[in-house]
Parts: sequence; C-alpha cells; structure tokens
Amino acid sequence: MEKLIITACLTGAEVTREQQPNLPLTPDEIAEAAYECYLAGCSMVHVHARDKDGNPTQDYEVYKQIKEKIEAKCNIIFQPSTGGATWHTPQQRMQPIELSPEMATLSMGTCNFADDVFMNTEENIKIFANRMNELGVKPELECFEKGMIDTALRFAKKGIINTPMHFDFVLGVPGAMGGELRDLLYMVESIPAGSTWTVAGVGRYQLPLNMAAIMLGGHVRTGFEDNIYYSKGVLAKSNAQLVERLARLSREFGREVATPDEARVILGLKK
Amino acid sequence: MEKLIITACLTGAEVTREQQPNLPLTPDEIAEAAYECYLAGCSMVHVHARDKDGNPTQDYEVYKQIKEKIEAKCNIIFQPSTGGATWHTPQQRMQPIELSPEMATLSMGTCNFADDVFMNTEENIKIFANRMNELGVKPELECFEKGMIDTALRFAKKGIINTPMHFDFVLGVPGAMGGELRDLLYMVESIPAGSTWTVAGVGRYQLPLNMAAIMLGGHVRTGFEDNIYYSKGVLAKSNAQLVERLARLSREFGREVATPDEARVILGLKK
Amino acid sequence: MEKLIITACLTGAEVTREQQPNLPLTPDEIAEAAYECYLAGCSMVHVHARDKDGNPTQDYEVYKQIKEKIEAKCNIIFQPSTGGATWHTPQQRMQPIELSPEMATLSMGTCNFADDVFMNTEENIKIFANRMNELGVKPELECFEKGMIDTALRFAKKGIINTPMHFDFVLGVPGAMGGELRDLLYMVESIPAGSTWTVAGVGRYQLPLNMAAIMLGGHVRTGFEDNIYYSKGVLAKSNAQLVERLARLSREFGREVATPDEARVILGLKK
Amino acid sequence: MEKLIITACLTGAEVTREQQPNLPLTPDEIAEAAYECYLAGCSMVHVHARDKDGNPTQDYEVYKQIKEKIEAKCNIIFQPSTGGATWHTPQQRMQPIELSPEMATLSMGTCNFADDVFMNTEENIKIFANRMNELGVKPELECFEKGMIDTALRFAKKGIINTPMHFDFVLGVPGAMGGELRDLLYMVESIPAGSTWTVAGVGRYQLPLNMAAIMLGGHVRTGFEDNIYYSKGVLAKSNAQLVERLARLSREFGREVATPDEARVILGLKK
Ligand SMILES: [Zn+2]
Ligand SMILES: [Zn+2]
Ligand SMILES: [Zn+2]
Ligand SMILES: [Zn+2]
Repeated sequence: MEKLIITACLTGAEVTREQQPNLPLTPDEIAEAAYECYLAGCSMVHVHARDKDGNPTQDYEVYKQIKEKIEAKCNIIFQPSTGGATWHTPQQRMQPIELSPEMATLSMGTCNFADDVFMNTEENIKIFANRMNELGVKPELECFEKGMIDTALRFAKKGIINTPMHFDFVLGVPGAMGGELRDLLYMVESIPAGSTWTVAGVGRYQLPLNMAAIMLGGHVRTGFEDNIYYSKGVLAKSNAQLVERLARLSREFGREVATPDEARVILGLKK
Repeated sequence: MEKLIITACLTGAEVTREQQPNLPLTPDEIAEAAYECYLAGCSMVHVHARDKDGNPTQDYEVYKQIKEKIEAKCNIIFQPSTGGATWHTPQQRMQPIELSPEMATLSMGTCNFADDVFMNTEENIKIFANRMNELGVKPELECFEKGMIDTALRFAKKGIINTPMHFDFVLGVPGAMGGELRDLLYMVESIPAGSTWTVAGVGRYQLPLNMAAIMLGGHVRTGFEDNIYYSKGVLAKSNAQLVERLARLSREFGREVATPDEARVILGLKK
Repeated sequence: MEKLIITACLTGAEVTREQQPNLPLTPDEIAEAAYECYLAGCSMVHVHARDKDGNPTQDYEVYKQIKEKIEAKCNIIFQPSTGGATWHTPQQRMQPIELSPEMATLSMGTCNFADDVFMNTEENIKIFANRMNELGVKPELECFEKGMIDTALRFAKKGIINTPMHFDFVLGVPGAMGGELRDLLYMVESIPAGSTWTVAGVGRYQLPLNMAAIMLGGHVRTGFEDNIYYSKGVLAKSNAQLVERLARLSREFGREVATPDEARVILGLKK
Repeated sequence: MEKLIITACLTGAEVTREQQPNLPLTPDEIAEAAYECYLAGCSMVHVHARDKDGNPTQDYEVYKQIKEKIEAKCNIIFQPSTGGATWHTPQQRMQPIELSPEMATLSMGTCNFADDVFMNTEENIKIFANRMNELGVKPELECFEKGMIDTALRFAKKGIINTPMHFDFVLGVPGAMGGELRDLLYMVESIPAGSTWTVAGVGRYQLPLNMAAIMLGGHVRTGFEDNIYYSKGVLAKSNAQLVERLARLSREFGREVATPDEARVILGLKK
C-alpha cells in the first residue's frame, strides 16, 4: 500500500483561542506549528491565515509571509485554503493562488455549513480552477457531499479539472454529508480509478475516518480546523500531537508514513 | 408491497412552453392536467404556480385558485411547492403553506442547481417547518444530497420535524447528487425504518429511478418539472402520458397503484 | 445502453410437470420452447436435459439431440448446463461441453441448495474451465455468492478463466445469497470493468431482479428453471410468456432487445 | 460505544508447528495461551483441540480437559469450535456442545475452503442448533458468505435460532467471501438491529478488518487459527502478542476493552 500522506489543517477559519488555547494564529505560530507537524510525520499543511486580531483573512501578503516562514523551516507541502471564511468574497478567497503553491483547495459545490452557507457557484469553481491551471497549482477537490464528486467528474470531462484528481472528503459538517464509515466508503467508491484521496472528519469523526483511510489506502487530514480534541472532552495539546497519533497508528497497522517528497510523487506535484 | 403513489410534478419553475408546448401554466390548465393525471392513476400533484406571463410565482391567490379548481374536479392530493424558483425570497416561497394543504414540499438544504444556487438555510428550514407544523401540513422532505437526509434526522431529533417522515429524493440535478441506481439505494438505506419515500429523477434519470422505486417499495414522481421527454428525443404529449406509463409498468410488475385516499393512508395525511 | 440479452432457462433440474404442466421435457419439447422464446425476443437458451422418465440427465446424446433440434429451427445461442442436478458426478456434468457449444455454464463454488449441497470444488472448477478453454466454449460464470466472484477473479489472474468474463448472478436460492436489489448491486459492483453479466432471480425475485438488470445495463435470465409463475399464484403459460413480458418491459423502458447475433457480439462468442 | 470484546482463536485445525513454532497444541499449552491472552485483554477463547500427535480432534474428553484447565486459570469465556476440521463428521464435530459451554460456534452454510469443502447442510445446522438450545449454549453464527446471514435470518424466523443473534464474519477464506472493507460493511448492514458481531479476517485481512470492527462498534477475533504473522513476513511470538496490539489500538482509538464479565453482559451469556 502507498505510504500515508498526513495533512495538518492547523488553524481553520472558525476556531478561536478561547476554544483551543494552542491554536496557531500568527505567521510565526503557524510556521512553528507546521514544523512541529513535519517532525511528527506530516507532509502537507493546509493553511488558513488570520489577521492581527486573529480574524480570518485571505490577504495575499499574510499567506506569503506564512509560506516563506514555513519554507525556511522545512520542505513540507504548503497548501493554502481558497475556501476562507463563509463571508469572504470569491475575489478575496482566490488570493493565495497567486503564490503559485504546489497545491490549493478547490471546493466543488455549495452547502449549508451549520448556520452559514458555504457558497461555491459553478461559475466561481470554474474561475478558481482556470487560474490554478494557469499557475500550475494542483487542486485538492474538497467534497462535502457526493454530488460534489459528480460535479468534479463533469468538470474533468470538460477539461476544466485535470486528471488524475486528488479529492478531500470533508465529512461530518452539520448541513452536509455525515461522517459514518459508510459515508466515506460511498465517496471512495464514487471516484475514478487512479485518483488519490484524503479524508477530513469533523469533530468526533476525525479519528475514526482517519483510521479508515489508513486501512483503505487513502490519506488523512487532522488538525484543529476540523477537531480540537485529543479524546472525548480532552483538548489536544497541539496539532502535532494529533499527527503523532496518526503516524503511530499507521505504523502499528503496517503502513509507512510519507515524507513531503514522497507525498509529492504520490500526488504528482511539480515542486 | 404497499400500493404505489404516483405524484405528478406538472409545471415546475424552469420549463417553458418553448421547450414543452403542452406545459400547463394557468390555473385552469394546471387543474385540467391534474385531472388527466388523476384519471391515469396519479394520486398527488406537486404544483408550481405561474403568473399571467407564465413566470414562476409563489403568490397565495394563484395557488388558492389552483387548489380550488383541482378540488372541483377530483380528490387528488394537492401538494404545493415551497421551493418556488431560485430567485424567490423565503417569504414569497412560504405563501402556499397558508392554504393548509395536506402536504407541501420542504427542501432540506442548500446546493448548486445548474448555474444557480438553491438556498435553504437551516434557519429558513426551521421557519418553514414550524409553520407547517402549526397548520398541520405534512412536509415532503426534498433531499438533493445525502447530507440533507442527515439534516432531516437532526431536525427530527429536535422535534422540528415529525415522524414518520416522508422523503423525496431529487436526483440528477447538475450541482447535486447524481441519478444512478446506487445513488438512490444509498439514499434509501439512509432513512429510518418506518419512513416513506418518493424519487424524482431529473431528465434521463426519471424513468429508471421510477422503475427502481416501483421495485423497492418506494413511490414515484414524474412530470414535466423533472423531465419533458417521453423517450430519447421525443417530447411527452402530456403529464398524464408519463403517469400512464408508470401505472402500466407498476401493474405489469405486479404492484397496484394507490388512489388518493389510499395514498392518504400510506402517508398518514389528515384530509 | 447495450441491447438486452434475454436468456431462457427452459427446464432446469428440479421442476416437475406436476408443478408446471407446460414444462418442456423431451428434446422436441425443449426445441419447440426454445423456438417460441426466440420469437418472443430471447437470444440464448440455457438447457438442462431430461431422460425418458423426465429425470435430469447430463447424457451427451440427449444434449446433442436438443442442440440439433434447436439449430434446425433458429439461430438462438445454445448454452447447456454443466451444473446438472446436485447428485450428478462431475464427469456426468461435463458431457455437454464436448458438443463445443458457444457457451456453457461454469459454477464458481459450493453452496447449500435448499436441502442439498451444490458441489463445485476448486479442483473440478479448474477441470471444467480447462476443457472449455480447449474447446473454445465461453463460460457463463454462475455465482450464487459474492465469494464465487472472488474465486473467478483469482482464477482469471491465474489464466484459468479468460477475460472479459461473463457472469450470471443466481440470487435467491435458499442456502445462498438472497435476491434483494442491494444484493444484486453488490455483485455488480464486485466484477471488473469490461465484464458482462446476467441475473437469474429465483422464484419471486425473478421479475424484480430482471427489471433491475434492464435498468443497470445488465442482461436477464427468465424461465421455468428459476420460476414457474407469471404472477403471484398464477402459473406461467410458457417460457415464452415470461420472455415476452421482459421484452415488453425493456422496450417500454427504452432499451432494445438483442437478436442472437447481436448477443454474440456483446458476449464475444465465436459462432 | 460498547466495550470491545477480543476473542482469541488460539490453534485452529490447519496450522502446524512447522508454520508457527509457538502454536499451542496440548491442553496445557492451550490453557496457558488462553491465560496469556486473558492478561492481554482478551475476554473469550475460540478453541480447537488437537490429539497427542497434534492432529485436529473433536473428542469430548480433550475439550473437557482444555475447558477445566482454562477455568482453573481465569474466568475467560470458553468457546469450543463445532467446525472441527473439514474431514470430521457432524457427530464428531458436535461433541464439545455436550460440555454446555457458554458459547460455541455454529457455521451457517457450506462453502469451498481452499481445496476442501466445509460442509454444513441445512439439516446438520438444525441438529447443531437444536442441541445448543437444549443445553443453553449461545451460538456464534459463523458466516463465510452473505447467504449464510440470510440462512440465519430464515432460521431465526422459524425459531431454530434465538435472538438477539451474535455473528462472526469469517472473511478472506479462499473459496468464500473476500476480506475487503466493503465486504465487511456489506455483512454488517445485512444483520438485524440488536445483533452483535465479531470479525475474523484470514491472513493479511486480520488486522485491517479488526481495526474496522473497532471503529464500527463490532468485536474482533485474532489469533493463529486465522493468521500466524505479526507483520508482513514476521511470525507472531504468541497469540497474546496479537491480542495486545488490538487492545492498544482500541484504547488509542478511545474504546475500552471488555473484561470477560463485561463481554458476558454484551453477549447475553448466562454463566
Ligand atoms: Zn480549510
Ligand atoms: Zn418543485
Ligand atoms: Zn441451470
Ligand atoms: Zn475455528
């Protein structure tokens, strides 16, 4: 079985310091968290930036700082979010693509996200995808529902998205698809042969879905964006602590953990 | 197996006379189409109103006229849409509930709908559901994605939606879940025992998904809102023609077709 | 969608004249039944021979007579059984292969069959398969359980069975896999891309599983071997009556019915 | 989630000392292995006896010795096999039931087992089940194929098997159902609510299927009968080593491990 790619979603757009005291917010904190995760076996970081007040921002300059600070520490794959927060405009959200990162997220449809709506119209998906193609950025296709996979297949057929595709199944968001094992399996069975995939389970779904991916030959995303607890009622000490457990579980299972360069080969990234 | 409930979605909000010359638009035409469908074996009509120019309207008075004209002809179940068109406000969309119909649709989430977004925030779903409960209107829970079922289950747990629930799986909308048999089966396996369900397949998915529902003990929706063709490239002559085929197929399969009163018992409606 | 191949299993090894008065038993009756089915839209007959007392026999000479009598009437595909009755020895069962028919059944494992055991050891499967290969007979891989597909895949890997494979899912036998739609779908999702498949539903599962196959792009088997009724409690008048209904349903659904020569192309048979 | 029941299948009928030098064979060795597993978190042992030459035996006296020796060491649940080896007669296989153990296996159908056939006719299943009922022995229903679950449901309907049922899915045997995650999930989705289940994955399927069961709320079987390796190419040192890893993985996942008495409550055993 292919080595396991562990992605850490360090910060997200919703979590606060009040909820999770160890949440990395500044570029320095985010870079330091990325480095700790790297040491723990993580090969990619999914990054959301925050402004000086700790609020979500999609500002180009902040992402640039984060990228540079991370690169100064290690060769982990830098994957900025183009989802931002639910109130950001598409133009705001697109900014980090201009950094030409190796990879960036591309959300494949619209759904409720608790009390908000996470808007990704077909038109905007196209605009994002086209710009990523121009800059050689490989999209991580975020699918919160099965229909978003169907949309990805439709876009791939039209040549708007290149193949082989890499999917990220984000499961357990209130308002979108749940996070049971059968949900994951249904998603996995809906993508074309030759694709790669990661699963991001929200809240209590994080660990079981990560374990399932380890078994199924998929890849995993862990971190504070999706879940702030280590176990029921016990806050995680750091993103790295969550990464460590996955690395330990995967090795115990008999599956090796990928280095960033090995992850690049698996994902077909051009550094 | 329970008798088959055939619902006819006569008009919809998107189809035009140009596309389908026999589309019923005025209250008189809609009532006449409902009556023809009733004679063909249909026990419920799903109704979208149009204004004098043929444009979608959620106006209370127009729905009232349609309801009365249908009731003057037969005892078919009148089920108005609360979805309206994608550009209607929630307040506009809610109006037909005030007629206290036996049933009305309730869309359980937000998704892309081709180039538009079909918006149903959690807050609005609650407002719609509460008003239906007050007026004794049973919701048909329209689910375009599996996550919408998960939302329905969450709402049922909180008592916002009563059980047993009746679902309508709307499959094949570009931007939401596809219309393969495995998609339908996945939805069916995701609802609680004791629920009832209907399937509405969009376009070319209409007939195969209807056939699957006949076999699986579910119910069916056909009509111009979802599909304007009788067979590949051949326009249907009327909504009733589509109903007739389903009645014929179901009987050939050995499953009887429900009268409106039998449908009321199956759905637990209080006339 | 590919045209529909209807196979008629005219006689079987278990049904009696007492149960179904129109059961064809003699070579003449079987050839006449095959011809009627051919006229009704059937492109292949699955044949079990009976001796002069009406008991199952795998005798070479009887199969030869049946084959010749059928060929004198029409160009339908002749597919003898190598399953025979549960008490036949492998050597008895193999005899019809020596006629070099275009196709013959090959059962891919052992299972209970009501109060009997249907024995197909790995060793015997190999012997049967090798002889079919030598004589250019394409096997129809009969799978009564999902594990039999797994065995077929294992054998294909070793080169004992050629690809693309053609499967027959025999569902609803007491002692083996049931006949629910989810069972069929599970089987279909377990075979390699490029394979073809037929479904044989036993008893009350015949018609619903046949309808499902029509929708799913599979093929169908009907006839007295699997089911003697036309509808609940009503005996079918003939095998042809069952074929006619499937042809009618398939055309109503919009799928054309294959002639024997079209079936040969779909199945890759060398006449 | 319910605590995890770990069953150890210590010896089996096929494995030899040549293959696995630490295989327990004599009653003393088996009792000692059971005790080590007990200390490692195992709450039930699935036992096959061997005679003085190390060959499989279903002899009453040998099972009696093993049972007493185990009971002298700890209160682990003793579950003898009624499967024995493929060449044992039903009468031989039944003997350990006469010890009135809390639980014993009951195989629910016939299938190929590599080059052999594992025979369990409907008649013999009934005879075994009736005797277990008379003596108050709860059957662990061994299902090697999905159809065996269907048989169990049929038997439960007739009152031959009591509910709630406890299943053991034995997956990955060459000749029966494979051991992919989708196979397990299909089995799990085929049993009635209120049932309990364990999974036994053969060979390389043991660990992944055990991990899946931990996540899904099922229970696990590990041990030399199903798999002799700790990791690829590395023999396990003992049955207890395999148990320890599962206990560690389950606790890491956040699921506690059941003591024998907790397992009795979960399984509804009367000690
Ligand atoms: Zn994100
Ligand atoms: Zn509508
Ligand atoms: Zn046959
Ligand atoms: Zn055993």
